[in-house]
Amino acid sequence: MNNKLKITFLGGVGEIGKNMTALEYNDEIIIIDAGLTFPDEDLPGVDIVIPDMSYIIENKDKIKALLLTHGHEDHIGAVPFLLQQIRVPIYGTRLTLALVENKMKEYDNIKYKAVAVKPKNVLKLGSFVIEFIKVSHSIAGALALSITTPVGTVVHTGDFKIDYEPIDGEMTDLPRLGEIGRKGTSLLLCESTNVCRKGYSMSEKSVGRTLDEIIKNHPNNRIIVATFASNIHRMQQIMDIAEKYKRKIAFTGRSMINVSEVALKIGELNFNRENIIDIEKLDKYDDSEVLIMTTGSQGEPMSALTRMAAGEFKTVKIRENDLVILSASPIPGNEKNVYNVINALYKLGADVIYDELAEVHTSGHACQEELKLMHSLVKPKFFMPIHGEFRHLKTHKELAMRLGMEERNIILPTIGMQVELTANSMKSVGYVKAGQRLVDGMGIGDMDSNVLRERKQLAEDGICVICVNINNVAGEVIGDPFIITRGVVYADEQESFVQDAKACIIASLKESDLRGIEPSVIRASLRRNISNFIFKRTKRRPMILTIVSLD
Amino acid sequence: MNNKLKITFLGGVGEIGKNMTALEYNDEIIIIDAGLTFPDEDLPGVDIVIPDMSYIIENKDKIKALLLTHGHEDHIGAVPFLLQQIRVPIYGTRLTLALVENKMKEYDNIKYKAVAVKPKNVLKLGSFVIEFIKVSHSIAGALALSITTPVGTVVHTGDFKIDYEPIDGEMTDLPRLGEIGRKGTSLLLCESTNVCRKGYSMSEKSVGRTLDEIIKNHPNNRIIVATFASNIHRMQQIMDIAEKYKRKIAFTGRSMINVSEVALKIGELNFNRENIIDIEKLDKYDDSEVLIMTTGSQGEPMSALTRMAAGEFKTVKIRENDLVILSASPIPGNEKNVYNVINALYKLGADVIYDELAEVHTSGHACQEELKLMHSLVKPKFFMPIHGEFRHLKTHKELAMRLGMEERNIILPTIGMQVELTANSMKSVGYVKAGQRLVDGMGIGDMDSNVLRERKQLAEDGICVICVNINNVAGEVIGDPFIITRGVVYADEQESFVQDAKACIIASLKESDLRGIEPSVIRASLRRNISNFIFKRTKRRPMILTIVSLD
Repeated sequence: MNNKLKITFLGGVGEIGKNMTALEYNDEIIIIDAGLTFPDEDLPGVDIVIPDMSYIIENKDKIKALLLTHGHEDHIGAVPFLLQQIRVPIYGTRLTLALVENKMKEYDNIKYKAVAVKPKNVLKLGSFVIEFIKVSHSIAGALALSITTPVGTVVHTGDFKIDYEPIDGEMTDLPRLGEIGRKGTSLLLCESTNVCRKGYSMSEKSVGRTLDEIIKNHPNNRIIVATFASNIHRMQQIMDIAEKYKRKIAFTGRSMINVSEVALKIGELNFNRENIIDIEKLDKYDDSEVLIMTTGSQGEPMSALTRMAAGEFKTVKIRENDLVILSASPIPGNEKNVYNVINALYKLGADVIYDELAEVHTSGHACQEELKLMHSLVKPKFFMPIHGEFRHLKTHKELAMRLGMEERNIILPTIGMQVELTANSMKSVGYVKAGQRLVDGMGIGDMDSNVLRERKQLAEDGICVICVNINNVAGEVIGDPFIITRGVVYADEQESFVQDAKACIIASLKESDLRGIEPSVIRASLRRNISNFIFKRTKRRPMILTIVSLD
Repeated sequence: MNNKLKITFLGGVGEIGKNMTALEYNDEIIIIDAGLTFPDEDLPGVDIVIPDMSYIIENKDKIKALLLTHGHEDHIGAVPFLLQQIRVPIYGTRLTLALVENKMKEYDNIKYKAVAVKPKNVLKLGSFVIEFIKVSHSIAGALALSITTPVGTVVHTGDFKIDYEPIDGEMTDLPRLGEIGRKGTSLLLCESTNVCRKGYSMSEKSVGRTLDEIIKNHPNNRIIVATFASNIHRMQQIMDIAEKYKRKIAFTGRSMINVSEVALKIGELNFNRENIIDIEKLDKYDDSEVLIMTTGSQGEPMSALTRMAAGEFKTVKIRENDLVILSASPIPGNEKNVYNVINALYKLGADVIYDELAEVHTSGHACQEELKLMHSLVKPKFFMPIHGEFRHLKTHKELAMRLGMEERNIILPTIGMQVELTANSMKSVGYVKAGQRLVDGMGIGDMDSNVLRERKQLAEDGICVICVNINNVAGEVIGDPFIITRGVVYADEQESFVQDAKACIIASLKESDLRGIEPSVIRASLRRNISNFIFKRTKRRPMILTIVSLD
């Protein structure tokens, strides 16, 4: 027993303090979030990236709870992987848990206990007293956490923004945050996504007003709106606008259908079921009578909107009378896919409105002035910026210092860092095994695995396979050497390439006395010679596999 | 002889009407620009992309001139490839030609004629009378073209912005554009890059004022500024500021050194040579006495700044007293590389200022109000938006229509499109072979080549090579089957994978009577069986190469 609170940052790719954080007091641990990230082109073939859970597994007997701040994939996506390793009760709002439940359907052998909580609920777990606090975000049911521990109170903001016109009528609970601050907060863990953006984020309702105006001004067009399926409040607004202008709604895209069902069931989404029509029955209505809600706002290759843009979506063929609204911004890295979709929609004759042309989206993350308000209400003694790249955390640190926080009371976490908090001090005490695990088909691997390096080399330079048959008693080459390349030579150069490569192989084999020679020796010299030959010819160094069989 | 002007769009990847355009009147052709584009992750291993020049080569006897609007790579980068195919005199400003010359050093066997022109110069080439018009852009020496032909005057804007405070004292020649408009312009070809941006672009001098303020406020820091080497006016401003605050300048990065030499030689860049120091001699000066100008503002992997950020740059080791200014915005697609560099610089303790934090960059392209001004001065009868994705061209068309142009007088070009202009009409008359050629090591290939498809498959799913030796007289397998995978199986699964795969191969071979069997039959069944085995095991379908040798 040492009366210290340990905070351990277990997840995040690029973005630090995201995905999974553990709070530990003596022999009790609570975990905040269990999320995944989606890989970019640096991780070819990788499906998803989850936190390395070694620390959790080593300490499995101490784990008391998993607290979920909200239902986005980067906060709940790794729940199945966690539950495969340990048994732990899960706490979150009804929507968050419904989204987890939806996800768990694919893993029918995992039993787990889920406890729905509401804002203002207080949960006592051993030495921890957790209060759930309402925050606005781009998904309904988002929470901040106020966690009282024997060394003081820790406020974890989750992802949040401050929206003075919230769709559900309940805004980020500023009074309660102020009250907690007044009583004395030891540590603030505050998200940093938009810390480089000046001012305030736009309110969700103002997006609604823009959408209303656009839809009103296109009374005769068929309207297709793409947005994030998880942005329930956006969906609610769009559905209300559709109802106002007497349009029926058709959902398309798997996650749009799933999430709308889930949200309707638990009452997070409110609409008249009679206004919903089956997408298959679209042609029974005039263009002016329908609004199609679809997935694909990020240009995801297999999504409904992308397939519509490619003319490959059966139930919705894009035509000149269509108005497509992308009510979303491209997530960094998705720009090109999104713009490809927009270009393709335009080429099919549709009109397209997206965030560069009108204010049809707002971020769910606090901008600078909102972050200042959070700091000023919570008034913590210590501060750690979370949820951001290092540059965001650095800028957030500077923001906190401008608000009067002393530099020595701020720590910028890195992945795997363990920080110890006492009543009077906060310090980094070292690192645990943490970071990223790649989920790839059926396998789970490391960031630095050969598999990735190999794929990258294959992608850049291709591969060349050489197969020769040797009789190392007689010292002879048997038959013709065999060479295949993939991703190396363009079609019209293929024939002369193969011919010359064979000559190179034969010349290489003639360099040595083949009698009694080891295949490994032949392989090494072959690899060297053919690599030089190919480089001279193509300025590339493909991966070279040499197979030498002894007759 | 048909008294029609044909305009043919030969280049552009994603961005239409860029890279290369041909104007043709009877048996005379002039070419505008010969640029390249840099590939993104969709084109693994590809070095650069150049226009398909089939049309040029087919009509080589008609080509009278290559007119270069300015010296950016997307306008001059394909000049060597063009000159390898045809002989043609090149016209451009001194800086543009100096940059071409610099590029041609790598091709010492190509002789060519280059003619330096200045704004207001008039060039008569057969039926074409070309007037060069000064425009502001993010490189010095940029030109618009007014081309008088027997069917009327065509104005081609090149890339431009309107900067009321130009660094070289000469702004976009609005009066002359107005005069040309007053006399009657038939067709405007106007760039569209920033057509989605409202208002005006910021002036270059206001960037200078921001940089001055920042450098003034960091008197004791060592200052490192990364910017585009081609942005001579930015360089001039930074050098002037350095001089003002008594800092010596050290250049680093190959293109920064090259371009500054070239620009100095022809007088585009003006500075006291005594203020330049060798980067190797940095340690003779205090931090407060130096300013380092470097490449790498786009986070290019091998650039000087990226290597500094990685701690791998010998002459400049980043330390806590460094202030790094990225005086550039990430070009779409480079965001991640740029932010990785910024994160790494912060982690080394440097302070970093970039476009999200301060106005340290401005675009070289006209925003909406500037485009409106261009349209209003030139007052063309016909309009084609160029230099942009389809969405930009579409938005530019709408902008032109809001200014009063009739829809039937506007054509949105696509790659390969040929447009015929007469005194009274403009219409698209078909398509020629055009588009993109991939330059990749030593080869030049097509967008749809197998090489690319293969590389993508290799990157996503890896490769599996199987080698078996058969005696098809006795109907026996000789020796052990051989299997290698790359990019498929993670290390700790490798051993059992190979074992089971071998068993699968042997089982597959036992399915058939091997006596008299054709290797192609064995290969097909092996490929099918092993592919299914691997899919079951890894949920992946790697490329499978089977090599069956007959004993």
